[in-house]
Amino acid sequence: MDIENLLSNNAKSMRRSQIRDLLSVATRPEIISFAGGFPNPQTFPMEELKPIMQEVLDKEGKAALQYGSTEGVVALREEISKLYKREENLDVPVKNILITTASQQALDLISRIFINPGDVVVCGLPSYLGALQSFWSYQGQPYGLRHNRGLDEACNVLCATGKKPKFLYSIPDFQNPSGETMTLEEREYAVEVAEKYDLLIVEDTPYKNIRFSGERVPSMYSMAPDRVVMLGTFSKTFVPGFRLGWVVAPDNIIDKLIVAKQSADLCTPAFSQLVAARYLASGAYDRNLKKTCEMYKRKKDIMIKSFEEFMPDGVKWTNPDGGLFLFLKLPKQYDTRELFDIAIKENVAFVTGEAFHCDGSGKHTMRLNFSFASDEQIVEGVKRLANAIRTLYARYA
Amino acid sequence: MDIENLLSNNAKSMRRSQIRDLLSVATRPEIISFAGGFPNPQTFPMEELKPIMQEVLDKEGKAALQYGSTEGVVALREEISKLYKREENLDVPVKNILITTASQQALDLISRIFINPGDVVVCGLPSYLGALQSFWSYQGQPYGLRHNRGLDEACNVLCATGKKPKFLYSIPDFQNPSGETMTLEEREYAVEVAEKYDLLIVEDTPYKNIRFSGERVPSMYSMAPDRVVMLGTFSKTFVPGFRLGWVVAPDNIIDKLIVAKQSADLCTPAFSQLVAARYLASGAYDRNLKKTCEMYKRKKDIMIKSFEEFMPDGVKWTNPDGGLFLFLKLPKQYDTRELFDIAIKENVAFVTGEAFHCDGSGKHTMRLNFSFASDEQIVEGVKRLANAIRTLYARYA
Repeated sequence: MDIENLLSNNAKSMRRSQIRDLLSVATRPEIISFAGGFPNPQTFPMEELKPIMQEVLDKEGKAALQYGSTEGVVALREEISKLYKREENLDVPVKNILITTASQQALDLISRIFINPGDVVVCGLPSYLGALQSFWSYQGQPYGLRHNRGLDEACNVLCATGKKPKFLYSIPDFQNPSGETMTLEEREYAVEVAEKYDLLIVEDTPYKNIRFSGERVPSMYSMAPDRVVMLGTFSKTFVPGFRLGWVVAPDNIIDKLIVAKQSADLCTPAFSQLVAARYLASGAYDRNLKKTCEMYKRKKDIMIKSFEEFMPDGVKWTNPDGGLFLFLKLPKQYDTRELFDIAIKENVAFVTGEAFHCDGSGKHTMRLNFSFASDEQIVEGVKRLANAIRTLYARYA
Repeated sequence: MDIENLLSNNAKSMRRSQIRDLLSVATRPEIISFAGGFPNPQTFPMEELKPIMQEVLDKEGKAALQYGSTEGVVALREEISKLYKREENLDVPVKNILITTASQQALDLISRIFINPGDVVVCGLPSYLGALQSFWSYQGQPYGLRHNRGLDEACNVLCATGKKPKFLYSIPDFQNPSGETMTLEEREYAVEVAEKYDLLIVEDTPYKNIRFSGERVPSMYSMAPDRVVMLGTFSKTFVPGFRLGWVVAPDNIIDKLIVAKQSADLCTPAFSQLVAARYLASGAYDRNLKKTCEMYKRKKDIMIKSFEEFMPDGVKWTNPDGGLFLFLKLPKQYDTRELFDIAIKENVAFVTGEAFHCDGSGKHTMRLNFSFASDEQIVEGVKRLANAIRTLYARYA
């Protein structure tokens, strides 16, 4: 059959993840990979999960293995509400929390209920590739904002030309890939602009609680709960393998997301939700998260120190207060796609920054993950990458 | 904010599940529910799962709790391939199997990559509500075929009027809700018509292996693997709570579904996939499925016997060779929505048949699930339902 002719416009608008394709090249065991966004498996609470799983099967096995409600398990939504209270002194009613099959599904459902073909979504330049993929898969048009302070101007132009944005998409804490955190003033300004043009904000917070230093900055949700849809996930703070995320949103939006989720996958597995709820209630979540942050801080420091030691001139990097990534820039004339091929020969992998730029820019940038590799691998991998960059430089010298 | 004005056309086209709303009425403990499509929790292999879960954490915990591949865990896809060989002597290559977050996600992804607004999908009248919801959520137009033998005529009219169907959607074994199974001749005819008009067939098989009597009929996939996308699930044969389903499709369709799944939820939980793979490999799956079929046959027989004993004149029902449902028809002048309200007062629940009819017909029909209730509850529930029907009859006498 000729499938191409059968495909929907959505399917034609979808973009395959560049990261995925790059990763498939980088599977040889001798390659040190800074490419994925994987948490370190040493942070997975293997031993603590065993008794909890037995308990869930013993005490609530029938519910755990049966169909669950679309909204998600109440016990887990209560624990998430408590988490907001404990961590941010924020009151989030359980009814405004919808459990999703990790935050990728939340992005998908939000895109589904808001984006018509051609609709503009304002996002960062760079921004999270998975979010861009969601927008594209509903034929949305992401607009990548060059400077946070340009938001008012951009919204004004878009509104004046009949392209009023459906929402503003932001990862305000340790952004993926840039590592940047919006200041309190920047958040207040974004909320102010959203109010001015009557826009919705989608606030994605996967890294918020992976903080090494500095003070927590209040969420935009806390400033305007009626205008902000806030996404959370346990992928970085607990385990990614359970695929557990959530959306916090006003009643009328949650209601639409529930209907969308009914036809998307009916419900997220009850078993993993019940396990997560018990894990949170046990106190182990808070304890382990503290250890995770300490480990990631150490790894980040090792990577930065290795950069300082080995990188040739002209390479610039971020030094974020949290998260999983460092963002690097080469001098503008160099293309990290070309570097990637050299680096793979040197047995080290990263992700080209271009993948995160919805306008195709950022060719001289790259994202490095520091959470997954061992301390020794980080030092060795940076050495190899520095060599690869020298080789690239030499080609144009 | 005025959310209604922000919503996408997809969101406006979505339909809330009537079943869901009916079920929310039917949660009082004194109600005997024939409404849901729940497997009986006594079939859940609780004790067998405990050591398997420990083993997965011990032996492959790091992979189980990490991000997984979008295609799904290879070990599980291999077990599914073996299952097809064992059960149907069918060769299904692992590369043509994509694991989904249960078959509802498969329906969603298929709708996403094929359906443009206004596109026609030919389905049964009645047909599975969850599938209709998927079609609607991408603004598809399901056309409910009145008679299987009318397929050629219907396709001819649709093609001649510029409404060529995107695909034919069929649940050929113990259809939900009708309980009907397509004969070999009906399947050959459907494949022939699909070839004549160059159409794709989506063959949904959630109940295929819940067979009590009669002979297995070959799948349409086995007749035309290049033209058929086949859906499977462990929700009825293992546990629904893990949300594990799969799609079998030609290379070029699998490839598009993978890209769609990347932005839908990245991957299905690896943990539950690894548990399922070990459960299948252990032989417990086959053993337990046999017991499940025996239990459901007994329950089906009890329900039929109770119908014969208690139902007033004019009520007709199916007696399928498998599945989870019986389909009932009242004389045409009665509305099962009205019956539902009477039945709830009698403390018994079912699903109105109208929900499964995409053209709004079927008001005198209803679906009864026999897998979930206890044997005693089935007898008692049928008595109550028969009383409710008598009350309804009396209103119009």
